Amino acid sequence: MKITRITDKKVSLRRTIDTGTEQQRKDVQDIIATVRNDGDKALFAYTKKFDQVSLSSLLVTDEEFTEAYRELDKELVDIIREAAANIRSFHEKQKRESWFSYDDDGTMLGQKMTPLDAVGVYVPGGTAAYPSSVLMNVIPAQVAGVKRIVITSPPNGKGTLPAGVLVAAKELGVAEIYKVGGAQAIAALAYGTETIASVDKIMGPGNIYVALAKREVFGIVDIDMIAGPSEIVVLSDETARANEIAADLLSQAEHDKNSSSILVTTSMDQAEKVKAEVEKQVALLPREEIAKASVEAYGHIYVTDDLETAIAVVNELAPEHLEVITENPLACLPGIKHAGAIFLGRYSSEPIGDYFAGPNHVLPTNGTARFSSPLNVDDFMKKSSIIQYSKQSFEKNFAKVAKLARLEGLEAHARAVEERLK
Amino acid sequence: MKITRITDKKVSLRRTIDTGTEQQRKDVQDIIATVRNDGDKALFAYTKKFDQVSLSSLLVTDEEFTEAYRELDKELVDIIREAAANIRSFHEKQKRESWFSYDDDGTMLGQKMTPLDAVGVYVPGGTAAYPSSVLMNVIPAQVAGVKRIVITSPPNGKGTLPAGVLVAAKELGVAEIYKVGGAQAIAALAYGTETIASVDKIMGPGNIYVALAKREVFGIVDIDMIAGPSEIVVLSDETARANEIAADLLSQAEHDKNSSSILVTTSMDQAEKVKAEVEKQVALLPREEIAKASVEAYGHIYVTDDLETAIAVVNELAPEHLEVITENPLACLPGIKHAGAIFLGRYSSEPIGDYFAGPNHVLPTNGTARFSSPLNVDDFMKKSSIIQYSKQSFEKNFAKVAKLARLEGLEAHARAVEERLK
Repeated sequence: MKITRITDKKVSLRRTIDTGTEQQRKDVQDIIATVRNDGDKALFAYTKKFDQVSLSSLLVTDEEFTEAYRELDKELVDIIREAAANIRSFHEKQKRESWFSYDDDGTMLGQKMTPLDAVGVYVPGGTAAYPSSVLMNVIPAQVAGVKRIVITSPPNGKGTLPAGVLVAAKELGVAEIYKVGGAQAIAALAYGTETIASVDKIMGPGNIYVALAKREVFGIVDIDMIAGPSEIVVLSDETARANEIAADLLSQAEHDKNSSSILVTTSMDQAEKVKAEVEKQVALLPREEIAKASVEAYGHIYVTDDLETAIAVVNELAPEHLEVITENPLACLPGIKHAGAIFLGRYSSEPIGDYFAGPNHVLPTNGTARFSSPLNVDDFMKKSSIIQYSKQSFEKNFAKVAKLARLEGLEAHARAVEERLK
Repeated sequence: MKITRITDKKVSLRRTIDTGTEQQRKDVQDIIATVRNDGDKALFAYTKKFDQVSLSSLLVTDEEFTEAYRELDKELVDIIREAAANIRSFHEKQKRESWFSYDDDGTMLGQKMTPLDAVGVYVPGGTAAYPSSVLMNVIPAQVAGVKRIVITSPPNGKGTLPAGVLVAAKELGVAEIYKVGGAQAIAALAYGTETIASVDKIMGPGNIYVALAKREVFGIVDIDMIAGPSEIVVLSDETARANEIAADLLSQAEHDKNSSSILVTTSMDQAEKVKAEVEKQVALLPREEIAKASVEAYGHIYVTDDLETAIAVVNELAPEHLEVITENPLACLPGIKHAGAIFLGRYSSEPIGDYFAGPNHVLPTNGTARFSSPLNVDDFMKKSSIIQYSKQSFEKNFAKVAKLARLEGLEAHARAVEERLK
């Protein structure tokens, strides 16, 4: 890992997002058009082409759920249940109620909160098919009150989905799971087919084709953010333990060769110890190759003269995951402006949040914590403004409204209010 | 206006959004690339090319603000101030605080709310340059606590901006206003130039080039929704007055030939009266041509047998603006799931909300109220999750986390928590 001593805060982990080639964009547009025209037929054809498997039905069957429970260690089922309970309990605290306010003149204004009718969760295939993704995407939607939650995921070679994914879905009571992936899954969720009714919002990460497809249908349905490379930043002073910092940095590095693992510390001595620990620990990892590539390409240690500069550096980075391992972590919190999830103290190792603690692990990546939030209950509800004017408040204000309307050259707006006087 | 009696609720105002031609997309990509490379130079060149005006500076000058106040009727300045106060008061009720929760085992979880650092508001030029747009976009950002708010708008033939827009901006204390429009303005806000520092989020409507540019930069910065055609739906029973309904329908129709004006009523007698009133009133409007075209193309009256079916129709339409003019409007509210703004009773004519009442007039259009909300304070803040585990809660749970990590094949995640035991 490269060690740099810095005095200013001119750093960034921002890497341009892969927006695909012209050809990839065209392919995705073609896939979407074909699914709109041919429906299920196109889904089966693309699944045969891209996933090399011929399916008789898209919907996951009861037998597949039963088999998944047979496959999965009972103890893990209990842990999944406990994690789900923690996640539900945290997200319930996010839920907001409708409100109204009244004025003496009889004006009532307010905001009505309503859950979305239907959402689709895309769960990527391959090594990225994580049960925790199911929990983290589905539970906030359930807390919001979404009635219909659909999961789509590309089938594996055996034409089914990983046991952990199916058990997690079943534990949450999600039965509508379709074995279809890629841009074709996004097209089906946005426009609907004979089997898959369209949804109002599509969540979840995926490969470049999935990302481009979400971009294409954005506006027809809502989507979550386009996810970029994932990262962890550890903010520490001399009191933190190098071996623990190194282990946490590597837990991010093992995800993907594109992941960033960054340490911002006030101690050069610690920086060198962490560098050595990372080299020692990475060699012992089963995913050594990925972790090593990630650390070499995007691993970095920044050493600052004081904690204040270190915090400024963190805000420049706006990390997805931030661990604060300092003498007094809570004291750093007011200064931290941009971070998806903030882990305070040595006992709050990042994996605790990935799986178990309760806050969402779907977080803004690649510096987008500057303007984005962790996945939360608000993402599954929408607001309606309520306006009720009384005769009294109308008579007091209609002339002002008419004058503003005429300033903007909208005579019919002015006449609409004046029509009430007739 | 076409009158249709319906018994089911199979209706929709959904119209496909203009996503531009291949050529338009390419032009926008070229403009963005050029602005990234040439900065201000490109902005001046495109302004000369597209707005036919050569500017010496992009930033609006003090002289231009002074001239704007000289131009504008004093009484209007007072009305703008009163409208701004109403809008601020409503949006302050939306603001949310950070929260924390504690468990007996020492676990602390929470959610920290932080305003965005910088946002850009695009104010369209021409007839659509509305002071009310400035109030509605800027005030929620100010309530959220956004420090830097930038406005960009294409200059008119005299190389300046409309007096109403400048006065509205000045009244809110926004001084950073740039005379640049189109895709080049969006590129400058997203990537920055010598004069215009980049922002974190871009708001505001615009023509197809602006919309495509926002789509292109989405992910680099955040954007609000891509606005589609605007609409009003009036829900009424026999107690409503046909002349008032007609006037409100026309206030929407005068906006744009693409606007929709729809009545859903339980009374066929009223439907015919409204049809006649619309024909009578539209002929007297200065914007008769636009309003007539809109009503002919997208105006519609649906007559249902009962209020329950009428409300179901409204939910299918998911309108931007909904007026409820029935005997007991409040009684309809629980059944209404999808609408941007809901106006209750005959004294709540839609223009009251456009300008003055307080709720935002930036609303989800074209049926997107199914998943989108009015512009609100949350759009200018983001959340950070807080996780602090104690020694006790860590020891109770680390083994479960390790087990879940290994289920997902992420050994380094498991070792990160186990490293704490050393």
